[in-house]
Amino acid sequence: MKQENALSRRSRQPELINPSRRTLLLGSAGAMAAVSLLGFTPLSKADEPKSLPDYAAWKDRNALIVHSANTMETHRGAIGTGVITPSEKLFVRNNLPAPPASVTEDPDAWEVRIEGVNKPATLTLAELKTLRVTTVASVLQCSGNGRAFFAHGAGGTQWSVGAAGCVMWTGVPLKDVVEALGGPVDGARYITSTGGEALPDGLDPKTLVVERSIPVKAMDSALLAWAMNDTPLTLTHGGPLRMVVPGYYGVNNVKYVKTVALTENQTEAKIQASGYRIRDVGVKGAPDQPSMWEMNVKSWVTAPLKSGQSGRNMIYGVAFGGTVSLEKIEVSTDGGKSWSPARFLGPDLGPYAWRPFVMAVDLVDGEYRIVSRATDVKGNTQPENRTENERGYGHNGWSDHGVTVTIS
Amino acid sequence: MKQENALSRRSRQPELINPSRRTLLLGSAGAMAAVSLLGFTPLSKADEPKSLPDYAAWKDRNALIVHSANTMETHRGAIGTGVITPSEKLFVRNNLPAPPASVTEDPDAWEVRIEGVNKPATLTLAELKTLRVTTVASVLQCSGNGRAFFAHGAGGTQWSVGAAGCVMWTGVPLKDVVEALGGPVDGARYITSTGGEALPDGLDPKTLVVERSIPVKAMDSALLAWAMNDTPLTLTHGGPLRMVVPGYYGVNNVKYVKTVALTENQTEAKIQASGYRIRDVGVKGAPDQPSMWEMNVKSWVTAPLKSGQSGRNMIYGVAFGGTVSLEKIEVSTDGGKSWSPARFLGPDLGPYAWRPFVMAVDLVDGEYRIVSRATDVKGNTQPENRTENERGYGHNGWSDHGVTVTIS
Repeated sequence: MKQENALSRRSRQPELINPSRRTLLLGSAGAMAAVSLLGFTPLSKADEPKSLPDYAAWKDRNALIVHSANTMETHRGAIGTGVITPSEKLFVRNNLPAPPASVTEDPDAWEVRIEGVNKPATLTLAELKTLRVTTVASVLQCSGNGRAFFAHGAGGTQWSVGAAGCVMWTGVPLKDVVEALGGPVDGARYITSTGGEALPDGLDPKTLVVERSIPVKAMDSALLAWAMNDTPLTLTHGGPLRMVVPGYYGVNNVKYVKTVALTENQTEAKIQASGYRIRDVGVKGAPDQPSMWEMNVKSWVTAPLKSGQSGRNMIYGVAFGGTVSLEKIEVSTDGGKSWSPARFLGPDLGPYAWRPFVMAVDLVDGEYRIVSRATDVKGNTQPENRTENERGYGHNGWSDHGVTVTIS
Repeated sequence: MKQENALSRRSRQPELINPSRRTLLLGSAGAMAAVSLLGFTPLSKADEPKSLPDYAAWKDRNALIVHSANTMETHRGAIGTGVITPSEKLFVRNNLPAPPASVTEDPDAWEVRIEGVNKPATLTLAELKTLRVTTVASVLQCSGNGRAFFAHGAGGTQWSVGAAGCVMWTGVPLKDVVEALGGPVDGARYITSTGGEALPDGLDPKTLVVERSIPVKAMDSALLAWAMNDTPLTLTHGGPLRMVVPGYYGVNNVKYVKTVALTENQTEAKIQASGYRIRDVGVKGAPDQPSMWEMNVKSWVTAPLKSGQSGRNMIYGVAFGGTVSLEKIEVSTDGGKSWSPARFLGPDLGPYAWRPFVMAVDLVDGEYRIVSRATDVKGNTQPENRTENERGYGHNGWSDHGVTVTIS
């Protein structure tokens, strides 16, 4: 497995190289220490990986923009019009180098420790499979999806729209696991999951470990998933076992999950305490800032993207409400001056899934700014503009997500 | 493209070779004439294709039983527990050799003639795409799925359970096309679709052409589909354009569709007039016998298939109601003496889709006959036994579809 440069684009600390701005950003002392300890060196532009890394070699290269060995984005034109994203087109974002591929050779032997329950236990995946099974469709989206549109140059992978997809997860509901182990201990307010990635010696594990806390209410929908799109979960996407929290940003869906604890407080791991926090530009991350938990309402156009013929055109896109279903989707061909209702396409896979949409429109020669605007059943509507924030998280402004199309 | 032997296993006339019974069945005079005209010779067992034919080379070989170059079945163990069958695992059944691959190089240029409407017209796929678009999940199943269980040796491919899958179709609703062309002519009672396969010279086309008529009421759900599972329709599955009739047996879903006509009468093509007709064993096919149109309620177990460990076991399977939704699914581990309710797994994709199911059961050492029984919302329940019929069509008896599992 290639691990070269694997840490160099972690977005939870300043990127060492931001290729879109072609500027060398010096990492923090901690980041540099980690890189040094793991034997990594910062990338120069010429080193930018063009091929898929070994642990994701099965992916559809043509569908993906390879930002780095740990970050691969689906081209906007490859998102398609389907209710489910084919696995080979789904984006990839790892916070640490993946464990060795050997961990997926005997998936049923994978062990997860359950803490913060009345009867703590270590369970194998084989045991989890006999507790209960559920299948749920859910959008998986990186907190930084849309970061490329921020003007202040938010550090981290410059995702456009393709750090998102909608897939089917199969696993055991977390609440069934917790109930089987005597229920939660008193005072449990968070679900804290820890990833099974190897950590370098000589560094405080809290600075690197992928350990995320989410509100205990997420127990209603969270699952420990062993399959994605009806295929055993790959190493690429966190197999053999992943914490899946439908409607929550990707980082909370901890890969290679080794420990799940019901806890009174959030973890002090850096990725939780200061990472993935919404704060003003220039401000450092801190535990009192909003954490990237539930996703907000969002949509974008997927076709046409550049040009079209005069006459009848079909405008396609995808939309989702995060943790709630959508009420409606609207499309504008004049940059948001006027809006028309679009129509959802295909079966509704539930509140956590996205819905492809389509709108037929007759267009004469000219240039059009096509934008889309989703509204969820709670009445939340996508805002026109992004909320500026240091890390470029949670962008759902409709204006930036539009496309300019020439009809001739 | 390899076309050798491609006609030799057409099930709409007696198979020349039935490999599962290892007997040479002499074809009808018509079949032999066709074979001779096309330069084909009957297969001997040693010629049985082991590898995928070129037009299906992209398929998952490990998931498929290759009966012939025109018939490939999904292994029962590869059906999985998902709501959608991945394209590479879906069964293949062609009635004639596929057209040259060049027809899918520029899909939008494909033309279909629409007749039996007030303004008959030839439309390109590009034009169809601007009329309207819909996406529907539907079971695709060969009429002869389950034929292998018939005791009288019904001729044709010896399908077990794997000539079925559930996929997403995207295309234009047929009724929108018909409305755009002025509506149906008076007296239209059938929708008659013609496939675009090349036919040999010197033979009455009616004996070979894939041309099927279905009741005009199917207009409510039929579509002209250009995509399957969000991918442009492959040559393997009838691309660039296929008539898709949700809830109807596979043969009605005419591939490479070149003409769609609203007609007063059913076509006189052999595949309609005498083929795909339910009749008693030993009786020849005739137009007054029931045609293989709407599918019946059906289910089968997909796991475990042979053995399991004592203790908690999860029994999985798939079930569907044809043109209507399911009311319930039951499972028995004692060959049908006693039944327990199973639970549907994953989102409901609508009345034409199948529903995976699961049931948890504690089993001690021993041998178990595991069967499943589905009931649709109209109260139709799978019968215990098959209805004997000459061609082995429409088998939905629960007994034959069970599996015998050893728990130790």
